[in-house]
Parts: sequence; C-alpha cells; structure tokens
Amino acid sequence: MEDFTDLINYAKKIAAETDKVIFEVVSGEPRFLYDASLHLVKAGGKRLRPLATVLGGRLFGLKEEIGVRAGAAVEILHNFTLVHDDIMDKDDFRRGVPTVHKLWGENIAILAGDLLFAKAFEALLKLSDYNVGHKAIVKAIKELCWASVTVAEGQALDLSLSRLESVTLNNYVEMVYKKTAALFKASLCIGAILAGAPDEELSKLANYAVNVGIAFQIRDDELGLVADERKLGKPVYSDLREGKKTVLVIYALSRASKDERDFLLSVLGNEKATKDELKQAADIILSLGALDYSNKLASEYLKKGLEALDSINEVDSEAKVLLRKLALFVTKRQY
Amino acid sequence: MEDFTDLINYAKKIAAETDKVIFEVVSGEPRFLYDASLHLVKAGGKRLRPLATVLGGRLFGLKEEIGVRAGAAVEILHNFTLVHDDIMDKDDFRRGVPTVHKLWGENIAILAGDLLFAKAFEALLKLSDYNVGHKAIVKAIKELCWASVTVAEGQALDLSLSRLESVTLNNYVEMVYKKTAALFKASLCIGAILAGAPDEELSKLANYAVNVGIAFQIRDDELGLVADERKLGKPVYSDLREGKKTVLVIYALSRASKDERDFLLSVLGNEKATKDELKQAADIILSLGALDYSNKLASEYLKKGLEALDSINEVDSEAKVLLRKLALFVTKRQY
Repeated sequence: MEDFTDLINYAKKIAAETDKVIFEVVSGEPRFLYDASLHLVKAGGKRLRPLATVLGGRLFGLKEEIGVRAGAAVEILHNFTLVHDDIMDKDDFRRGVPTVHKLWGENIAILAGDLLFAKAFEALLKLSDYNVGHKAIVKAIKELCWASVTVAEGQALDLSLSRLESVTLNNYVEMVYKKTAALFKASLCIGAILAGAPDEELSKLANYAVNVGIAFQIRDDELGLVADERKLGKPVYSDLREGKKTVLVIYALSRASKDERDFLLSVLGNEKATKDELKQAADIILSLGALDYSNKLASEYLKKGLEALDSINEVDSEAKVLLRKLALFVTKRQY
Repeated sequence: MEDFTDLINYAKKIAAETDKVIFEVVSGEPRFLYDASLHLVKAGGKRLRPLATVLGGRLFGLKEEIGVRAGAAVEILHNFTLVHDDIMDKDDFRRGVPTVHKLWGENIAILAGDLLFAKAFEALLKLSDYNVGHKAIVKAIKELCWASVTVAEGQALDLSLSRLESVTLNNYVEMVYKKTAALFKASLCIGAILAGAPDEELSKLANYAVNVGIAFQIRDDELGLVADERKLGKPVYSDLREGKKTVLVIYALSRASKDERDFLLSVLGNEKATKDELKQAADIILSLGALDYSNKLASEYLKKGLEALDSINEVDSEAKVLLRKLALFVTKRQY
C-alpha cells in the first residue's frame, strides 16, 4: 500500500490556505446569503481540486500562492455545483450536515449557488492584483467557463439518464466526463495555464485529469453503495433512490436475470423505495459482480491517467510525485 | 411627447443582431437543456440592455459589432436571472409564455439558468477573437462579475423584504439598485470599457445608468399594478401576491388608516389571496396617491440620470441623443 502521509499533509496545508482565500472572496451583504453560500465550505471537504490546481501549477513552476488563489476559484465553483445539485437531487445531507436548501429553503439555496458561481470568477479576476498578466487571466477564465458549461451539460445528462431504463457504458462515461472530470481537468489546467505551460504539456495534463477524474467518479459511485454512512456524510443508496445510472447499475442490469432486472427497475429512481428494498437491490448488484467490473474499469482509467502524467516534462518533480499519489488516493480511497 | 421612432428602429436592428450572437453562443448538447435555456430569449423581450451596451460603447467610439457581441453577454446574463427569479417567485408566465420551470420543471430550469450564467462570460471571452485586447476583456468581465454578485445580493434582499412588514424607502432603493440598476450600469459600462473610456467618464456613465435603472424599476413596479395583463405578458398583481415591497406599497402603508393597513397586510404575500382581494388592495394603494408619489420619485431619478449623461464628453453625439431617449422611454413606457 502506498504511503499517502506526505500528500495528506500537503493537502491539509493547501486546504487551510485555500479556505482563507475563499472567506476573503466570499464575503458581503446580506449576511444570510453569504452564510448560506459558505455553509458547505465550512462543513469540510478535502479541497482536492485546489490541491490539483496548486500541483498542476507547480509542475510548470507556478508560485504556490498564485496556485492557491486560483484553486480557491475552482473550489468555490465546485461548491456552487454542490448547492444546486443537492436541490435537484433532493439530498438532505452532505459532508455530514444538512444541505443548504434544507436549512435556508430552496430560493436562498438557488441564490447562494448563483453567488458562488459569480465569486468563482471574481477569485480568478483578483489575480490581476498579484502580478498575473491579463492574457493568462483570460485563458484561465476561459478554462473555468468551459468547465462551468460542461458541468451543467453533465448534470443535465445525469438527470436525463436517471429517467432512462437502457443506458450504455458510453452514455455513462460521457456524462461522468462532463459532470466530474471536466472540473478536475480545469482545476489542473488553470494552474498550468497560470504557469505559462505550453499547449502540448497542457494537453498531457488534461489527459491525466480526465482519466483520473473518471476513475474518481467510478470510485465515488462504488462508495455510494458500499461505504459506511457516517464516513460518507450522506445516506448510502441515495444514488439508487434517485435512479442514478452508475457503472455498477449499468453492469448489473446487463447481467441480471429477468426477475432481478424487474426488481432493480422497480427500486431504481423510486422515491418510495424502503431502506430494505434499497439494501436488497444493492445486494443483487454486488452479487452480480458489479464491484469487480467497476474496480477493473477504474483501474484502466487510472493507468491511462498515470501514463499521461509520466509523459509530462515538468520542472518540479515533487509536484509530479504528489500528483501520482493524488491519482491513487482518489481512486482507491475507502470513504 | 417625445418621438421615439429612431430609438425604436435602432433598438430593433440591435435586437436582431444581438439574437444572432446569442444563438451562436448558446448552442450545444444536450438539446433539451439548450432549448430550455433559449426559451425566454425566443419569447421576446426588448433587448434594452444590449442596446445600452452598444450605445454606451458608441459614446466613446466603440464599433457597433463589438458592442453587439458584448451586449449579447449582458442579455444572456439577464435571461439567467429571469429563469431563476421565476422559480423563486413561483411565476407561471413571462413575456406572454409559460416560464421555463413550468415547461421543463424546476431542476432543468435551475440548470438552464446556470448554463446561461456561464455562457454570458463565454460571450465576453469570445471578444478575444475580434481583436479586443486582454486588458479590456478582463475589465469588462470584472464589470459583469460585479453585476452578477450584486444582482444575487439584490434578489436576496428582495426576498427578505417581502417577509418584513416595515420597509423604508431606503431599503427599497438599495434593493432596486442591486437587483436592477447594477446590471443596467454594467450593460452601459461594459460598452464604454471596451471603447477604452477613461475612468472619469465611466463614472459619469455609471451615474446615468444607476439613476435611470432605479427610475426604470419604479416604472416597472407601477406597471405591475396598473398595466394591461396581456401587454404585460404576466399576471398583474403578482407583485402583491408575492408581498413585494414596491415604492407604491411602501408609500401606501405609510399613509393607510389602521383598517386599510390591516387589509393590505392580510393580502400582501398571501398566496391564497383572491383576484378580488388583490384588486381591492390595488385600489386602496392607488386611492392613497401612491402612483403620484411614485411618478414623482421616478422623475427625480430620471432627472439626475439625464444630468449625468449631459456631463459626459462623448465622441458620438447621436449615441448621446439615443441614450437620452432610452432613459425617457424606459421610465415613461405604458407597458
């Protein structure tokens, strides 16, 4: 087993610095709107995206301080998507606390998300106070903007796949690419862009990010089925209740007997499904070998991502080592 | 009465060009998400904000084509706020058609708004393909970003004022400044920024925009009480049903007898209020002279705005004439 101590310590240091920037940028009146906007930020989270931004920048010689400020932008954007996704998915808990719409109501949650969205761009714009050139800022904002568009498209796909019975692995990968991997890619590339990395190196880094991002989401879907509820910070099986077409579900449906398939389809996306029925559905999915399949698939993406990372001509080899560990960490994590 | 023919003809020309850019920028997959995002754009609207951008730019010599592209960004952002506001206000109609959440459901409406938000920034970023320098683009994006933050704060204030019994004129003006005037200010200033206008001129233009923006909203509130429903494109009295603290309501509450006040407060923000009760409340508000008061207030803001406009050192006097007419048009319009 890999030793993640150095990665975890570095992640903690970057997380603390990122939070300082987030609190600086996301401040204003009326107070209740800013409280709602900062609620999930205060509830925790590993700040893996800002870490990716810092490391993506360091690969090509970016000062950590600039990476942190840009990473804060990405984390703010990520929090915006969480606030809105929780409304759409009707999720009551996240990071172990009630979701924003549960505490402030849907209207304020919609607005809190909108505010965070704008503040993410503001965080990047503030880089002009830190000696970053306008050209690099425009390129970084383009990347964040592309990710915002792509994440919205991905969430729309996710909602529409939930309503379909027949979903292919390709549908899933496209959705996950847009919904999860795009922002991870932007996180890394914004750091590298600010460091002035050449386009050839950017596209290798993007390759690392997209593959690791997809592997990360596959692992996330697995944890939604097998994790300890308290460690997960939200109810297990909520993906099943919402009818999410994860790799596990797609594989299980393709292997299930007619009876199993009928039962799974009666539970998936059924808001009235009982905890027992959800558990039974999860057991069927696992008994069909979905976890093995999904693990194998995640490993393939991880491998491609690491190969892309290896091919990068970096100036900071420590950053490369940490990015390798980050990829292993997010795709093998237990909660 | 002023002759608005030249303004209206120019507005139509700019509207058609703006729409072309909007359809170019807001296109992609999945189709249903883009259809939902473009629904209100297709339903009409006068495109007064893009017109303001073009004219704000022309004052200082900006090419119309660049003004139109930037104006499209502002109009896209405006449409984002409409889609989300309609969800929050539970409005069923806008521009004479059912609102986005009525047709596609709340989830897709939230996402459609999010997508438009990102696309507004994308529209400004695309200016780099049209020979606009990075420094000007960054400054323009800062202005749009400031407006996005301020509009979210304004909408939050609006929601919170709806729940308060006692609201002062100052509370109202602050809310309207943030909710409406800020984006009108950004519309004009983005044009001027792209033209390279000096900060001194920008602040005069901002002064014009903020004052006219507030007068515009006061007129909008009046129309919500007295307009013809079909021309308005949405039900009259919806502001009353939602408990919106307009100038008219604030004034009426300050002048009402105890009985009138009790009745008004029983109807304002009461979702179950009947059409008759709403009509009766509107009649009380009008009988107390609220419309005269509100007209006078709007005229004061209009006057300040026109004085600010006069003080600008423009290079295109036709643009100044049209901006003067625009101010009169939006504050005196009958529907």
